[in-house]
Amino acid sequence: MIGKKTIYLDYAAATPLDREVLVAMQPYFTDYFYNPSATYAAAREVHAALEAARASIAHWLGARGSEITLTAGGTEANNLAIHGVMRQYPEANIVVSAIEHESVLVPAGRYDCRQVNVTSDGLIDLEDLARKIDEQTVMVSVMYANNEIGTVQPVREVTRIIAAKKATRRAEEAVSRQPSAVSPPTTSGQRTASSEQRPASPLPLIFHSDACQAANYLDMHVARLGVDMLTLNGGKLYGPKQSGALYVKAGVRLQPLIDGGGQERGLRSGTENVAAAIGCATALDKAQTLRHEETRRLQALQQQFLELLEQKIPQAVINGSRRHRLPNNIHLTMPGYDNERLLIQLDELGIQAAAGSACSASDQEPSHVLRALGLSEAEARASLRFTMGRATTADMIKNTVSKLTQLIVS
Amino acid sequence: MIGKKTIYLDYAAATPLDREVLVAMQPYFTDYFYNPSATYAAAREVHAALEAARASIAHWLGARGSEITLTAGGTEANNLAIHGVMRQYPEANIVVSAIEHESVLVPAGRYDCRQVNVTSDGLIDLEDLARKIDEQTVMVSVMYANNEIGTVQPVREVTRIIAAKKATRRAEEAVSRQPSAVSPPTTSGQRTASSEQRPASPLPLIFHSDACQAANYLDMHVARLGVDMLTLNGGKLYGPKQSGALYVKAGVRLQPLIDGGGQERGLRSGTENVAAAIGCATALDKAQTLRHEETRRLQALQQQFLELLEQKIPQAVINGSRRHRLPNNIHLTMPGYDNERLLIQLDELGIQAAAGSACSASDQEPSHVLRALGLSEAEARASLRFTMGRATTADMIKNTVSKLTQLIVS
Repeated sequence: MIGKKTIYLDYAAATPLDREVLVAMQPYFTDYFYNPSATYAAAREVHAALEAARASIAHWLGARGSEITLTAGGTEANNLAIHGVMRQYPEANIVVSAIEHESVLVPAGRYDCRQVNVTSDGLIDLEDLARKIDEQTVMVSVMYANNEIGTVQPVREVTRIIAAKKATRRAEEAVSRQPSAVSPPTTSGQRTASSEQRPASPLPLIFHSDACQAANYLDMHVARLGVDMLTLNGGKLYGPKQSGALYVKAGVRLQPLIDGGGQERGLRSGTENVAAAIGCATALDKAQTLRHEETRRLQALQQQFLELLEQKIPQAVINGSRRHRLPNNIHLTMPGYDNERLLIQLDELGIQAAAGSACSASDQEPSHVLRALGLSEAEARASLRFTMGRATTADMIKNTVSKLTQLIVS
Repeated sequence: MIGKKTIYLDYAAATPLDREVLVAMQPYFTDYFYNPSATYAAAREVHAALEAARASIAHWLGARGSEITLTAGGTEANNLAIHGVMRQYPEANIVVSAIEHESVLVPAGRYDCRQVNVTSDGLIDLEDLARKIDEQTVMVSVMYANNEIGTVQPVREVTRIIAAKKATRRAEEAVSRQPSAVSPPTTSGQRTASSEQRPASPLPLIFHSDACQAANYLDMHVARLGVDMLTLNGGKLYGPKQSGALYVKAGVRLQPLIDGGGQERGLRSGTENVAAAIGCATALDKAQTLRHEETRRLQALQQQFLELLEQKIPQAVINGSRRHRLPNNIHLTMPGYDNERLLIQLDELGIQAAAGSACSASDQEPSHVLRALGLSEAEARASLRFTMGRATTADMIKNTVSKLTQLIVS
């Protein structure tokens, strides 16, 4: 637990469940435990509570409830987004940034997947993006904020490029009136009769963004962002683990990952996890309500952290964009040091931090994110991530840099 | 909530979270919330707690911890079992009983799927099963106990038939030494060099059983049952919703449904839901500890329910096997009555029951289970399910039959 003695600086890996969120969830464990698909009045009340949670999530996204699919976490939502689109177009391709989370990179890698370069700051190379989207691209996935280096991507710029590509496609389509080279999806909902009479519709070009790390600090309004799909992760915003949601814009068709009773409008079968949905909604509500205040507070701590580092450990190299960055992330390379060893020593001194992503902590490969920035394997292995959160104070930051200095100097 | 005034008889749709289970989960929400993949000591403790939960589940199954994949519920586990095998063998077929849950039937239906008949009692027709397994069958899925009519399937008999089929295959293989007609899987783990030197290995024949409704009352020991895969659902055994596990016998290879950080030995990526895993393990532990006692207690109530029905409502027809049946299930047809209407009236009188499965409650089709037993559409629409649980008493049963009688007579 986050005690007086330990300094937890790994909020990007996991956030504690907020007490208010737990209080909101509690009745749905033991008292209002009913299956929301049952017909009696008490179950219908539970169903209404589930739908209210969905509507609350939709509210913060500027979306409709029917556009929110509840999932068991961010990884599942990313998989649903990618497989849900790509399985319909086996010959098409998907374009992703080189620094996506594994839950995007691995599913995308099962198709014809093109990775877009990032700058040494970790920002997506927009020219490379425009080059890599071709007439066979059906999906682009670019994360909102990176989980390792905290870089915030120019999502609206990506939207603009995609809009321009779509306009070009429509124009070409209008000129040629030829059927597309890739077959249209063969889902049950399709009218095969009419498709024989007119040319196949052009391929869609769907923009998905993984916002798992962004929802505590950034605007989630999907229309302002211009995304077609957005992934949320309750477990990273002081909500329950394996709670989450995928926003799917009305009109975007997905194939389900998990079939069965047809819950979540057929996109995610299984008795609904009502407590988790309410937890996720309550957590998002609090995170978005606090986001400006928390951003300001953490930006000050981030600034303090950077200044202290510059004074005490001038050899530390900060990774990622300084300007386009989550307010809670500090990511640095300590040339010549081994991060595993530093982390153990920091832990002994009561400081809990990370080397890259916890998701890949167990494997031995150096971070693909840091390699994409141009860091050598040795530099990647000398890198540390500190991610702050609601309980982080100025004293903790001072203490952390002082302990780190102690380790480096001694 | 299960109050003094209402009689909850829909335990097959949802069970309340047991208080002891909630107490076991609670520390992992707010205090020990760490990502189990992180490297500091506190996170390693959480990892150890997760592995202890896995080992506890494995214990009741007579399995190893490494054979337990934690999932977000029974539906996901069934999907992982079926897609996990079948995607490797796109030209092979799967054999399932006609009365499987939708979370088996729908994924299986995406492949070459043969449905095995059941008797009018809801027991699988073993001769039909033996007939339908051919040389291209790679998987058989037969549920342990049915969610609607409570019929317990002769799992060991199914195992014997599968063992005989495998023996025949091996004998034929030895004689012919010909490569199999269906290509072996092309997973990364396979040694392609050696596969060129010897004939392709024969197709596997994997037996999966959905035990979602069985774990409160029946033996879960996988070696005694002879299954290769078994699905557990925490949400049906007084554990948290969307908790569950898939037992996968060592040596059975699956393709993951959800890719990413590689958690659950690559079979289910996503930050582990430690609280849910502990909840599921604690719930299974309690359910299996109580199972003999609860079975005896509920069998007496079931007997009482049936006798009262015979006395007061002789026109009621009991569906499913009387002998091979879960102790908590009463399923009946009231010829000439509309079940939706009866359910509303029962609810008004404080009795919460179901018409078939809650999972498909929202769709308008009559139950595929009841149709498979030979019931007409009208009979299916006149059928009611009462499922008892830990809080059910003799008084409640008396009260229920008396209220039902009132509705039928008036």
